[in-house]
Amino acid sequence: MTAATPNRQFRLARRPQGAATREDFDFIADGPVPTLEEGGVLVRTELLSLDPAMRGWMNEGRSYIPPVGIGEVMRAGGIGRVVASRNPGFAEGDAVSGLLGIQDFAAFGHAQIQRGDVRRIDLAAGTPGQWLNVLGMPGMTAYFGLLDVGLAKAGDTVVVSGAAGAVGQTVGQLAKIKGCRTVGIAGGPAKCDWVVKELGFDACIDYKASPQAVREGLKQHAPRGVDVYFDNVGGDILDTVLAKLAPKARIVICGAISQYNNANSAPTAGPRNYLSLLVNRARMEGMVVFDYADRYPEAIAELAGYLKDGRMKSREDVVDGLENFPEALGKLFSGGNFGKLVLKVA
Amino acid sequence: MTAATPNRQFRLARRPQGAATREDFDFIADGPVPTLEEGGVLVRTELLSLDPAMRGWMNEGRSYIPPVGIGEVMRAGGIGRVVASRNPGFAEGDAVSGLLGIQDFAAFGHAQIQRGDVRRIDLAAGTPGQWLNVLGMPGMTAYFGLLDVGLAKAGDTVVVSGAAGAVGQTVGQLAKIKGCRTVGIAGGPAKCDWVVKELGFDACIDYKASPQAVREGLKQHAPRGVDVYFDNVGGDILDTVLAKLAPKARIVICGAISQYNNANSAPTAGPRNYLSLLVNRARMEGMVVFDYADRYPEAIAELAGYLKDGRMKSREDVVDGLENFPEALGKLFSGGNFGKLVLKVA
Repeated sequence: MTAATPNRQFRLARRPQGAATREDFDFIADGPVPTLEEGGVLVRTELLSLDPAMRGWMNEGRSYIPPVGIGEVMRAGGIGRVVASRNPGFAEGDAVSGLLGIQDFAAFGHAQIQRGDVRRIDLAAGTPGQWLNVLGMPGMTAYFGLLDVGLAKAGDTVVVSGAAGAVGQTVGQLAKIKGCRTVGIAGGPAKCDWVVKELGFDACIDYKASPQAVREGLKQHAPRGVDVYFDNVGGDILDTVLAKLAPKARIVICGAISQYNNANSAPTAGPRNYLSLLVNRARMEGMVVFDYADRYPEAIAELAGYLKDGRMKSREDVVDGLENFPEALGKLFSGGNFGKLVLKVA
Repeated sequence: MTAATPNRQFRLARRPQGAATREDFDFIADGPVPTLEEGGVLVRTELLSLDPAMRGWMNEGRSYIPPVGIGEVMRAGGIGRVVASRNPGFAEGDAVSGLLGIQDFAAFGHAQIQRGDVRRIDLAAGTPGQWLNVLGMPGMTAYFGLLDVGLAKAGDTVVVSGAAGAVGQTVGQLAKIKGCRTVGIAGGPAKCDWVVKELGFDACIDYKASPQAVREGLKQHAPRGVDVYFDNVGGDILDTVLAKLAPKARIVICGAISQYNNANSAPTAGPRNYLSLLVNRARMEGMVVFDYADRYPEAIAELAGYLKDGRMKSREDVVDGLENFPEALGKLFSGGNFGKLVLKVA
């Protein structure tokens, strides 16, 4: 890599109204490779993670992390290789996971390394795809959401929406491992088949099958009510599950992908059936995975063990080419991806 | 009392659509005094408690207790005197608290006594009105909701709606005693003045003052966000408080009086801002006071102490005459009552 090596980047050009499209970004075909500072590390991107949360990061206003600024490289997690290091903790060729952004090269200074923006990873524990999936943010979200917020325990009926998605697939498999009855909600027969036959969920409800599919599916597959609902989608599905809670149920609010593209960044309607929380003495609680950063190692160790012994599977949906970022991201919101969506860069 | 003594009763005639009115009940002017069985007790009603929850009990369908059946005496808690006893735990003249119903005389069998439907009370600890308020269901709801579900602790900012109502007045005073900053929400300057000047809340927001009153009031009185919101009302006020949560906030869903009169018994709209739970890693949890029945004695002892030493005040709004039950109940939903609403029977 020389001064002439180009660094392709997607920078946020404006705040999207509704779904993010190519016009909301500036594509820089020949940006400069960032400067490696004393104490820092320079990383070449190999695989980027595309996540529903990215849509929220594009909105103005108060949230759990600051929004991406206009003109800044779009924030994204990814896996890469160290191409140059001035930090004793990293050597050229090390595999790393970090907030690389939608670009070919990312530089991290000493302070960023200190706060954990980039970390070495062990490719013996998982492939790069798995490090963005079961061993990455989605897996961490599933692990702490299900166990620490949802308090899932053996015998519980656990329902998870977005069951074939990155977080959902790990939630369901982990719930099975912990002895729960596990019911997925996903869109279309292919995803539902995979969730049941490959991942071992007890059942999966195809919410696209009919307007009553979720209500009827819960009646059939959760006859004694839902003890834990891990919600990735919000909207009508959340409302339908609220009406089927078991006493003392826990709802984990992890996301609301059905609502993220609303222009004003707030859902158009709230959960009408929220008073089911009262009747059932139930709880609805939000979670942000970054709060558990200190405990990622314990979760990674446990989940890597399940990958190793075959009890946990991992499916990635790979889109090739950094230049296809905006369209790839759009697949998340149309439900067009099947498995954890990643963008192959190099 | 002889066989000729009449027992006035209000029986549920039909399921109300919207607000309950006189037409929804049959008034029995000369019903029979119920029969006293071996092991039972006969009670003459003195004071009845009128509560928002009563509206829910009139609806068909699954809830935390069975609905009142058509033709049955309307369920209500109350204070009375034992007029005849065939149970060694009760003597004629004993003051009791129990599920007396909207009637002059109530009989309890041995099984009902065993499960606690009627209990002796100590009028040295509180007046009959206080036994329906601070030392009754509203006080128990406030105590366990604020401390066990809301986990309020010194330094927290606690917001309570329906602040001048039965539950709200005790929530706010108890929060102050526990060292919280306490902000009430109530309708009209008279209630707000009383809550601040008599009960010692730090502030009270008059939600009727303007459409922006709650939003602006919270900005002023809860500048660092709301740690605990004790919700008695639901609707727009819940949505506005959701937008002002502090990190790790707890919302106690105790009731939703703004929604109880909807004909289909479900709110017309849910809380649009519920994703604030995610951003703030906050929790919304329902409670039903009956779950804490085993622990009422500890709460009563503590609250009676505060009544005794003057740190806790109690205000009742007394309507005279059993025959005025339907109109008295209506005051709850129009906000026409000022303090815990009770019906004086004898």
